[in-house]
Amino acid sequence: MEKRYLFTPGPTPVPPEVLAATAEPIVHHRGSDFRIVYERALVRLREVFRTTSDVLLFAASGTGAMDSAVANLCEPGDTVSVVSHGSFGERWIAICEQYGLDVRPIRYEWGEAPDPDEVASAVREAGAGVVLCQQSDTSTGVVSDVRAIKAAVGDPVLVVDAISSLGAVPLEIDAWEIDVAVSGSQKALMSPPGLAMASVSQRAFERAVPARSFYFDWPRTKKAQDALDAAFTPAVSLVRGLDVALGLLLEAGLEAAFERHVRLGRAARAGVKAMGLELFSPDDDSSAVVTAVRVPDGIDGNDLLRHLRDAHGVTLAPGQAHLKGKIFRIGHIGWFDIFDIAAALAAVELSLIELGAEIERGAAVARAFEAFEGRVAT
Amino acid sequence: MEKRYLFTPGPTPVPPEVLAATAEPIVHHRGSDFRIVYERALVRLREVFRTTSDVLLFAASGTGAMDSAVANLCEPGDTVSVVSHGSFGERWIAICEQYGLDVRPIRYEWGEAPDPDEVASAVREAGAGVVLCQQSDTSTGVVSDVRAIKAAVGDPVLVVDAISSLGAVPLEIDAWEIDVAVSGSQKALMSPPGLAMASVSQRAFERAVPARSFYFDWPRTKKAQDALDAAFTPAVSLVRGLDVALGLLLEAGLEAAFERHVRLGRAARAGVKAMGLELFSPDDDSSAVVTAVRVPDGIDGNDLLRHLRDAHGVTLAPGQAHLKGKIFRIGHIGWFDIFDIAAALAAVELSLIELGAEIERGAAVARAFEAFEGRVAT
Repeated sequence: MEKRYLFTPGPTPVPPEVLAATAEPIVHHRGSDFRIVYERALVRLREVFRTTSDVLLFAASGTGAMDSAVANLCEPGDTVSVVSHGSFGERWIAICEQYGLDVRPIRYEWGEAPDPDEVASAVREAGAGVVLCQQSDTSTGVVSDVRAIKAAVGDPVLVVDAISSLGAVPLEIDAWEIDVAVSGSQKALMSPPGLAMASVSQRAFERAVPARSFYFDWPRTKKAQDALDAAFTPAVSLVRGLDVALGLLLEAGLEAAFERHVRLGRAARAGVKAMGLELFSPDDDSSAVVTAVRVPDGIDGNDLLRHLRDAHGVTLAPGQAHLKGKIFRIGHIGWFDIFDIAAALAAVELSLIELGAEIERGAAVARAFEAFEGRVAT
Repeated sequence: MEKRYLFTPGPTPVPPEVLAATAEPIVHHRGSDFRIVYERALVRLREVFRTTSDVLLFAASGTGAMDSAVANLCEPGDTVSVVSHGSFGERWIAICEQYGLDVRPIRYEWGEAPDPDEVASAVREAGAGVVLCQQSDTSTGVVSDVRAIKAAVGDPVLVVDAISSLGAVPLEIDAWEIDVAVSGSQKALMSPPGLAMASVSQRAFERAVPARSFYFDWPRTKKAQDALDAAFTPAVSLVRGLDVALGLLLEAGLEAAFERHVRLGRAARAGVKAMGLELFSPDDDSSAVVTAVRVPDGIDGNDLLRHLRDAHGVTLAPGQAHLKGKIFRIGHIGWFDIFDIAAALAAVELSLIELGAEIERGAAVARAFEAFEGRVAT
């Protein structure tokens, strides 16, 4: 009977109408019923990516789309630059290493945002033809300025991991001339996990090499999609759900979504600070995807998350790698409103008090609403 | 309002309780709620594969698991033998070619079953270290004797595509010493498409090479699964559905499922013949997955399938490649009973009559029930 709250940066809560769509009877992927849904989902994806280029859709988790970028753009021994400022930057590095590339990491402290000019000069020095980066690294809450990175980097193919940022913060594939961006269904796209996508510009297709993967081969996928077919049996129920979710997102408008995410971030930060906790993620409006918080002294982060879950049905995300136990993260992407922030903050406050911390009751939620409504400076 | 009938060999109809499970609220993949489901699904998969080895689970369509086998077992230039007797044998060849292997096809006419001794001598002649084959090629309805193929082939690693056969016809991974078998959620496992799996024996792990894929890397997947984690965000809603579907399958028992599929095949063949149509798939009990039927003279196969769908809401599968328009296929795998066969046959009979064929009304359904009940020699 206990209500459950999912406040993690992925998977994220999925609206009931999306869940209901995924439970509709299965139809054949080559039948006219599915083609209508498939075509509309592909059109809507292009609208969300703000591109007229192809958005390739895979049955996979987001990492599958990351893998596809490396498999289609790089040959063994190629020099690539990877901008890494968190767990997912390290994932880019691991993928590139698996494919036998000459990987030149451009590493920042976890929690720092990359400097576009520094990145550009490191790329030039390495002579890299492909640059891989994150728009949002959920391990830290940092959202980087991929528009400026592309402008600074220039000619090399830029691949942006927008898995947790697409639909939450602005990403203009065509206007910013982003060559490739990958994403997943289970973040701000408000859908269950299991679908990955890659926007691939004409320029990126021209720079592509023969794919070192059959399943993630871009030209094969494009050719099939162009015929409104799918190269392999698509995850029809997930595509149906994604189509409904994209409809909800576009109906309200992307700009409204971006503004909501900024205000949710403000609310989360204001509430966290009102509790006397220290932010780990940046304390500015770029931080619209996930709010990372330092666990207060004397409290074990793992205990806190376990208590939140077991005593109150609230799931937050832990720190990753060396941040395990030291931070916790409140995701606020996708199907998320101010009342969710309030619930997350209230649950953290209650749990910390139950674990022995001294916190003024009620301040966090009050400050969060004020910040959301724009009644306080943030 | 029209009722729809999905009688294709994949995706297949999914029981409502499985669909309902996929629509439950999304939970975090690292939380205790999901771990219980994940662990149980993995245990049940091993039961269905009849193995104590690992069954690796991927968010992907079945082709992803096929890709994983080639990416984990072969290096460029390796000689492999591919047994091909249909569209999916050709897919093995295409995958192997994409990975730069020296592919030695062992081709049979579409509709013929491979001869294990012939296969073994071709493998020996090629000096192949890996052999890839289908247990069921749904393009033709042929189910091959993979137990005999493994016994004849001996030492080389045998990779069996059991995508459409697992859960429909016997497959004993451990008893038959099958090194690798791949499958998918959307066939006899009665689940929506989007999950792929690969059973990998200890011996296959020992023969594996450094994976030429990040997403489909077997050791990384095994290591994560051993910790009841997943290497990447799993398709949580699909895993939940699969768990329920596997529970249904195992509760009734695999032997009961195998027997039901044999009897469904008998019923389909008896009905088809009673209509005066010619079978394309073998006219024996091996043909328990899909019944392929030659389109009668004077009727266009595409017209027939369109009419079935548009006039009666019934989806059957067309012929593939050079069989397009020449055959149609009735899938009868997974959540399928004799009343489904009756509906499929009645719809074909009605549609053929509406398209101008002369067919005795009612004979097909009557003979189908007799064959299903074992009251006629088949």
